[in-house]
Amino acid sequence: MGNADYECPRRVSIPPSKPFFNSLKSGLKETLFPDDPFRQFKNQSASRKLLLGLQYFVPILEWAPRYTFEFFKSDLLAGITIASLAVPQGISYANLANLPPILGLYSSFVPPLVYAMMGSSKDLAVGTVAVGSLLISSMLGKEVNPNENPKLYVQLALTATFFAGVFQASLGFLRLGFVVDFLSHATIVGFMGGAATVVCLQQLKGILGLVRFTHATDLQSVMRSVFSQTSQWRWESGVLGCCFLLFLLLTRYFSKKKATFFWINAMAPLTSVILGSVLVYFTDAERHGVQVIGQLKKGLNPPSLSELDFGSPYLMTAVKTGVIIGVIALAEGIAVGRSFAMFKNYHIDGNKEMVAFGMMNIAGSCTSCYLTAGPFSRSAVNFNAGCKTAVSNIVMATAVMITLLFLTPLFHYTPLVVLSSIIIAAMLGLIDYEAVIHLWKLDKFDFIVCMSAYVGVVFGSVEIGLVIAVTISLLRVLLSVARPRTFVLGNIPNSVTYRSIDQYPVAKSVPGVLILHIDAPIYFANASYLRERISRWIYEEEEKLKISGETGLQYVILDMSSVGSIDTSGISMFEEIKKVVDRRGLKLLLANPRSEVIKKLNNSKFIENIGQEWIYLTVAEAVAACNFMLHTCKSNPEVEYNSQDDNV
Amino acid sequence: MGNADYECPRRVSIPPSKPFFNSLKSGLKETLFPDDPFRQFKNQSASRKLLLGLQYFVPILEWAPRYTFEFFKSDLLAGITIASLAVPQGISYANLANLPPILGLYSSFVPPLVYAMMGSSKDLAVGTVAVGSLLISSMLGKEVNPNENPKLYVQLALTATFFAGVFQASLGFLRLGFVVDFLSHATIVGFMGGAATVVCLQQLKGILGLVRFTHATDLQSVMRSVFSQTSQWRWESGVLGCCFLLFLLLTRYFSKKKATFFWINAMAPLTSVILGSVLVYFTDAERHGVQVIGQLKKGLNPPSLSELDFGSPYLMTAVKTGVIIGVIALAEGIAVGRSFAMFKNYHIDGNKEMVAFGMMNIAGSCTSCYLTAGPFSRSAVNFNAGCKTAVSNIVMATAVMITLLFLTPLFHYTPLVVLSSIIIAAMLGLIDYEAVIHLWKLDKFDFIVCMSAYVGVVFGSVEIGLVIAVTISLLRVLLSVARPRTFVLGNIPNSVTYRSIDQYPVAKSVPGVLILHIDAPIYFANASYLRERISRWIYEEEEKLKISGETGLQYVILDMSSVGSIDTSGISMFEEIKKVVDRRGLKLLLANPRSEVIKKLNNSKFIENIGQEWIYLTVAEAVAACNFMLHTCKSNPEVEYNSQDDNV
Repeated sequence: MGNADYECPRRVSIPPSKPFFNSLKSGLKETLFPDDPFRQFKNQSASRKLLLGLQYFVPILEWAPRYTFEFFKSDLLAGITIASLAVPQGISYANLANLPPILGLYSSFVPPLVYAMMGSSKDLAVGTVAVGSLLISSMLGKEVNPNENPKLYVQLALTATFFAGVFQASLGFLRLGFVVDFLSHATIVGFMGGAATVVCLQQLKGILGLVRFTHATDLQSVMRSVFSQTSQWRWESGVLGCCFLLFLLLTRYFSKKKATFFWINAMAPLTSVILGSVLVYFTDAERHGVQVIGQLKKGLNPPSLSELDFGSPYLMTAVKTGVIIGVIALAEGIAVGRSFAMFKNYHIDGNKEMVAFGMMNIAGSCTSCYLTAGPFSRSAVNFNAGCKTAVSNIVMATAVMITLLFLTPLFHYTPLVVLSSIIIAAMLGLIDYEAVIHLWKLDKFDFIVCMSAYVGVVFGSVEIGLVIAVTISLLRVLLSVARPRTFVLGNIPNSVTYRSIDQYPVAKSVPGVLILHIDAPIYFANASYLRERISRWIYEEEEKLKISGETGLQYVILDMSSVGSIDTSGISMFEEIKKVVDRRGLKLLLANPRSEVIKKLNNSKFIENIGQEWIYLTVAEAVAACNFMLHTCKSNPEVEYNSQDDNV
Repeated sequence: MGNADYECPRRVSIPPSKPFFNSLKSGLKETLFPDDPFRQFKNQSASRKLLLGLQYFVPILEWAPRYTFEFFKSDLLAGITIASLAVPQGISYANLANLPPILGLYSSFVPPLVYAMMGSSKDLAVGTVAVGSLLISSMLGKEVNPNENPKLYVQLALTATFFAGVFQASLGFLRLGFVVDFLSHATIVGFMGGAATVVCLQQLKGILGLVRFTHATDLQSVMRSVFSQTSQWRWESGVLGCCFLLFLLLTRYFSKKKATFFWINAMAPLTSVILGSVLVYFTDAERHGVQVIGQLKKGLNPPSLSELDFGSPYLMTAVKTGVIIGVIALAEGIAVGRSFAMFKNYHIDGNKEMVAFGMMNIAGSCTSCYLTAGPFSRSAVNFNAGCKTAVSNIVMATAVMITLLFLTPLFHYTPLVVLSSIIIAAMLGLIDYEAVIHLWKLDKFDFIVCMSAYVGVVFGSVEIGLVIAVTISLLRVLLSVARPRTFVLGNIPNSVTYRSIDQYPVAKSVPGVLILHIDAPIYFANASYLRERISRWIYEEEEKLKISGETGLQYVILDMSSVGSIDTSGISMFEEIKKVVDRRGLKLLLANPRSEVIKKLNNSKFIENIGQEWIYLTVAEAVAACNFMLHTCKSNPEVEYNSQDDNV
């Protein structure tokens, strides 16, 4: 067993040190360009490189030449379907954001066109999003009252959208897409669920026909606001709202039962709007407390560059709001895009998507659009309707354009309560309780993160929920770095394999030798913990052996297979461990140190200190060496024992 | 080679899942009690447990019974030596903090007594610290002007000290000692160096005899303040300051040359104070622009519980200052304690030290003392003077008590410029340029962290430097989590060992098999990166093989040895990788998954999806299985090839 290995142990050589700038360059490349986007540019002519570069940022140039009429037929159908959803949703969400309803329609015109040119997803349907709208109303509403100062509020919303776009595009250009990865799936599930709950609660205003309502989003304030004015509740509004909600939920139930019925679900909101408007028009319900949208301006998006206000005292609020809604919109949009791409087996480039989202919001903020992203509900309808490319977004934009040019007067009598029902129906789909159960089953910690995001959003505010969830997620990462595992390895019988004794009860420990596996890079954050923990392992092993009366401990082998890197604190840790081991009269051996680690240990003279002959390629070789020495020394145990005492 | 292994591969069994609360308990224990402080309580009687518990929090109970007269002789000498340093340093640092000089003496009386009972270090000499004093003057001075409103300023300083103590003690009680670990050695070196530079610059006020001086600490403000009033410079003061500084630096130089001369260095500050006072008294230099301390109140610390002001509008400032100075004092004190403990081979318990520091500052804040910790200079003198136990702190406190009771009038004529010289001399020792060179040689990133802390402190402010350094350190940790390494393994000839091809050029890749090592736990923060990176490895390997015309890729083995844990995002990542691999017509194998990972993969049905027969204990066994199948299938390559095409 492994004797052949020991007779000719392969030394772990110290790799030559690379020039500093080479290693910096390769490190930066691996960090910022892990997908190697320049791969396709290699060995190409200059004009080809230019074309490829253009195609990289404007993917439509790449796929448009291959676009066929067959594709167009599918995209036309999908585009019209999502347009029928986009118009009522646009108006509803603008209402949620306390912005003029027409802005919701504007936002479904320009941004989809920009995305169709720059985006890399084939299934994402662009439009306003509920959570973004809620964030705008809660964060900006704190500073400026939208009823008292509507012009300033709209200016702030557009400015925030501009900053969201700038932030998104810069993340993409600077290749910092991984920032979004720090919003884990669990965080997003909890956050979205909480936001959906909050949005539903806000709709009680519309359903109950209330005129005054709190601007706070937490459960307590909303409940207080609802129950403090029971006398203001309008039953007409309530009945209408419940009927439409039932209708919308029923259509969803049917289309879920059979995928080919997706259009029932997709058409339901528009149907509700038409039905509601007709009902109000003929029953004169407007006079009975059913509020309606009222006059909508005809015509396309007016330019709004002059509305962007960079000198206002609320600039910091706009920037802060922009950054937060930008990140949230990105996280949702990219997650949605990725899931559909996974279904259809194509690839989405996160950094490219960020640039596309950013450009679409920058362009939007200059053309009277507020924050847009890729809402899940609309994209799912798009996908089910069989869209083939981003042309479905162009079709939708065209349909919205026609609406803006000719059909806006039709929405005059649309009751607000129908919009509330549409929002509630969409939001109920965002509360993903199945995912929460899944999290509970798989990973309790992820469940805690998810629930704290939910509770934070519902009982605190949207920002508080987000901050709590991100903090807990980060704490988990930091804790895992600060408390890496160490475990004892044992020999799997009849092999040269060494595995954790806890995981494989069959593994046998080697008499006189303690083999420890360190399971993380060694950093300042864990160096002192590891020092304590390793000392404790050694102490405990000695105690155990003392009680059982077995051979005393002679060798400590550190298996460094998982120690990918080390910093100066880590190096000091090794020096201290060496002292601890020496003091107890033991010998320290290292197995399988990695190149970066051995280089640094060598530079710090630790290798000289421990002796290069004590470093082995595998645990098996280190054990073989220990066994060899144990048997050689057994002929003269007294000497060995005394030399130990001297060191104590 | 490994055939025996393959013929009887040891299956990786799925460990039984532990009850949730058991695993939570063991996880919490490992995180919060890694040093297992309850170990000694096992199998003891109740009274013995009580005694051990008391001894745990009040270590003096443990070592006092073993205290001998021999020890006392050493401690007496060391105590008197550090007292001679404590008196001038105490006055100087209180001056630096813009507090009445007498508070510096008070702070060398009560806190050392508390520490002597509760601390676990035998060498730490307790007293006020330069950086803490600087932080108090810069953070509180921003809110309250110490000259205009001295009473409020002192109240705030005491309140901040109280909160520092509460924060320190709570960190200790809550076993959160690892918070301090996030201040890496590099951060502390840079931060201390920067603070020392800033403190030296502040002393230009004393050296040049200026009366008005900026409260800002950044280089620019100080330089502007100094050079805007060149007409106010007093040459008498300057000459005196330079002479004493030279004297202090010379004594340090000599005592560094020969360790037995440590007392020269230790006595020099007191000698300077005496010399300076005598000089001023006889030359009447007070009238020639040399400022003196003036009247000091006789008597012991007055109680100051009523001075703690929890209702003031500056409460948040006091809390913030308390937390920051608390952490900094802990980081310095524990680092100092640990280094001397390492020399003398005893152990310091970080959490216990935090409780001791906290108690000492809480007690201090009630007895007119401001922030105390374990300053490096004083502890080094204590160590060199041959202290044996914390009794040297008691001796020092007694000496300070005598000073307070009888000798304070003697300090009336002590010139401030001498105090400035003492501070500068102490601070120059804190600028550890050798450590900076060491960092540059070993780890460029640590060097950057260190320098940014330094630059931030010197050109910005103490807090800015700290925030920058901690942020960069944390970013490094997060980046290392977000961008774990993956690398290709190859077979070391004539062995069953597989190692990185980059590190060991002798390692040979296996035809038709790609072996990837994933080098980190898989979390939300790195799941999508790993998905992209693994897909790219597969793509690149296929391209390479296509060009070289070798056997096409058939198997992908993921070596999971270093994947210690996984969350739900990580599990989704595996599901996606499986799809990518399937789509390319390849087979996915896992080698050596760890127990937590395999449990979660099993719960999520991924093991069913991939098939348990594709999971191996070692890479060698997985490769053997691949080779076996490759050779079996070679007899009918067409079938294999077609089945691949179908999957594409």
